[in-house]
Amino acid sequence: MSRFWSKTVKELTPYVPGEQPKLSQLIKLNTNESPYAPSPQALAAITQANNEQLRLYPDPNSDSLKQAIAKVHGLEARQVFVGNGSDEVLAHAFLGLLKHEAPVLFPDITYSFYPVYCNLYDIAFETIPLRDDFSINVQDYGRKNGGVIFPNPNAPTGRALDLTEIKKLLDSNTESVVVIDEAYVDFGTESAVSLVNQYPNLLVTHTLSKSYALAGLRVGYAVGHPDLIEALERVKNSFNSYPIDKLALAGAVAAIEDQDYLHNISQKVITTRSQLVKDLEQLGFLTIESKANFVFTKHPKKDAAAIAAALREKHIIVRHFKLPRIDQHLRITIGTDEQCAALIKELKAIV
Amino acid sequence: MSRFWSKTVKELTPYVPGEQPKLSQLIKLNTNESPYAPSPQALAAITQANNEQLRLYPDPNSDSLKQAIAKVHGLEARQVFVGNGSDEVLAHAFLGLLKHEAPVLFPDITYSFYPVYCNLYDIAFETIPLRDDFSINVQDYGRKNGGVIFPNPNAPTGRALDLTEIKKLLDSNTESVVVIDEAYVDFGTESAVSLVNQYPNLLVTHTLSKSYALAGLRVGYAVGHPDLIEALERVKNSFNSYPIDKLALAGAVAAIEDQDYLHNISQKVITTRSQLVKDLEQLGFLTIESKANFVFTKHPKKDAAAIAAALREKHIIVRHFKLPRIDQHLRITIGTDEQCAALIKELKAIV
Repeated sequence: MSRFWSKTVKELTPYVPGEQPKLSQLIKLNTNESPYAPSPQALAAITQANNEQLRLYPDPNSDSLKQAIAKVHGLEARQVFVGNGSDEVLAHAFLGLLKHEAPVLFPDITYSFYPVYCNLYDIAFETIPLRDDFSINVQDYGRKNGGVIFPNPNAPTGRALDLTEIKKLLDSNTESVVVIDEAYVDFGTESAVSLVNQYPNLLVTHTLSKSYALAGLRVGYAVGHPDLIEALERVKNSFNSYPIDKLALAGAVAAIEDQDYLHNISQKVITTRSQLVKDLEQLGFLTIESKANFVFTKHPKKDAAAIAAALREKHIIVRHFKLPRIDQHLRITIGTDEQCAALIKELKAIV
Repeated sequence: MSRFWSKTVKELTPYVPGEQPKLSQLIKLNTNESPYAPSPQALAAITQANNEQLRLYPDPNSDSLKQAIAKVHGLEARQVFVGNGSDEVLAHAFLGLLKHEAPVLFPDITYSFYPVYCNLYDIAFETIPLRDDFSINVQDYGRKNGGVIFPNPNAPTGRALDLTEIKKLLDSNTESVVVIDEAYVDFGTESAVSLVNQYPNLLVTHTLSKSYALAGLRVGYAVGHPDLIEALERVKNSFNSYPIDKLALAGAVAAIEDQDYLHNISQKVITTRSQLVKDLEQLGFLTIESKANFVFTKHPKKDAAAIAAALREKHIIVRHFKLPRIDQHLRITIGTDEQCAALIKELKAIV
């Protein structure tokens, strides 16, 4: 603490991301990265862009990327906003679209960055408890609010809502923005992007960090009504004119244009997930039905923190949250078949 | 305007960056980019980093970059903060260090992003008129304030303060943070980085977009007392855990380690600047003494906007600000010798 800090800084409780250990030879199943390489076309596009033109600023509007995203989703470029990872996109959405007198609503168990944004921007919020089975009850979001946000599938549970439920929410909540954070949508959830032309208050966010295997590139985006996109652009242009560098821009465009590759590696993760869930069940683990590239699981007889610590000794890192209701669960990223087999082998020894 | 916008968004007046035209065959002297390629070592490091490891998140703390920066300046890594361009660094500094009850002070003619940040974060500010010769009078900054910020050399004037003046300011202003934005320092100004160990309220920001010829990579940094750096880290970790992607990280480290190259291309710009100032003088232009990679110049008989428009017809783009006190000036980036010769040739025809 310092007398030079603003009141805002003094009151912050920053987000703590999953560890990025600098050791090699780890099986790293703690931050939901893809176990597969990015599209070769993305790497080739970056090679192309890595030249003396880096002396020039990138396109501040990232038009080529907006067009690629719009095309994939059958939208117009003015329905697309891009940012330096979906975390930046979400930050701008909180300040630009979710900051009102009434509180923002989100689940009690969800992406733990949401309350951090609220503290940063002095936004009122209320958390809504998930049901006992960790599902979202959309009827709980009927109360007066300044906005609603949740991931679908939810994190860290992996549980998804279907579009019928999302529509129910949107039909009953027309006076504030609903943000559906679809970071994990490509692993088996129906996307709400198909609804943005119907609902002017729906914003859907995506990231290239998970299914596209480009966490290292920092690109995320939002789609929605042009009025919502304009709000994000206004915040962005009051914060940083050029958030996407030339290399990230080139790589992201190529990755998005390579939808076959995306579907291929996403399907591999889904297949591995099925096997992992079965194997965990055999060891007595109880796993929530996951539509994400991770599973949320617990063992009825063995403390979750103890399991995580024992795995770490074997150089396998999974994520444990010391939080109410979920401190007996582990969030385990879906690795390759080999990594998951190694995990199961160690778990067998532990439990 | 939309009913879904927050009050913050409704009241914003976003920054307008210099144009990034998509035409080729332009002589682009409007956004102070380097006319030279980045260090070959930076491009080589990016090539190295462009591999399947892009599937993983970057180091959220960018430790390797902080260490490289600290080494160059003879500081410790905990005295360094890095961001997605110095614009992001400045944004965090406004929210974290300059938002207090008393107004932030900055010159009336300066980087036009400063008031934009103030609007974004609801920060009170007062502008202090430059002297008639566009110099900063540090004694004007003695009044009660929540912080002081200006570029040195100043933009868009190019005029620099020497360290004696900066020290005078710091000795008289010990109760709030002083941010010296040294985006253009490498073109002939003595850096205030040498003062950060003496003044716990001094923050100095740098960018790789100008002298390092890496505008396309989006990397900037701040150095100062660890308490000031911690404030920036707290804001950053409440906004976006991973602002620097893996490619930018690799490129920036290599560029910073290649100080010989930096000095070489900076010296070339300085040499070209001397010649350009002389050539402009011969055409009757009055140019402010510049310590930056641009000159700020006016012609006593020819309207600045008209000159800019005439140059544009010849595919030469310079920057004109329609702002009080400076609407008869042009800001012209120092290009290569050939580009400056082409500029002078066209100006001769115009004036």
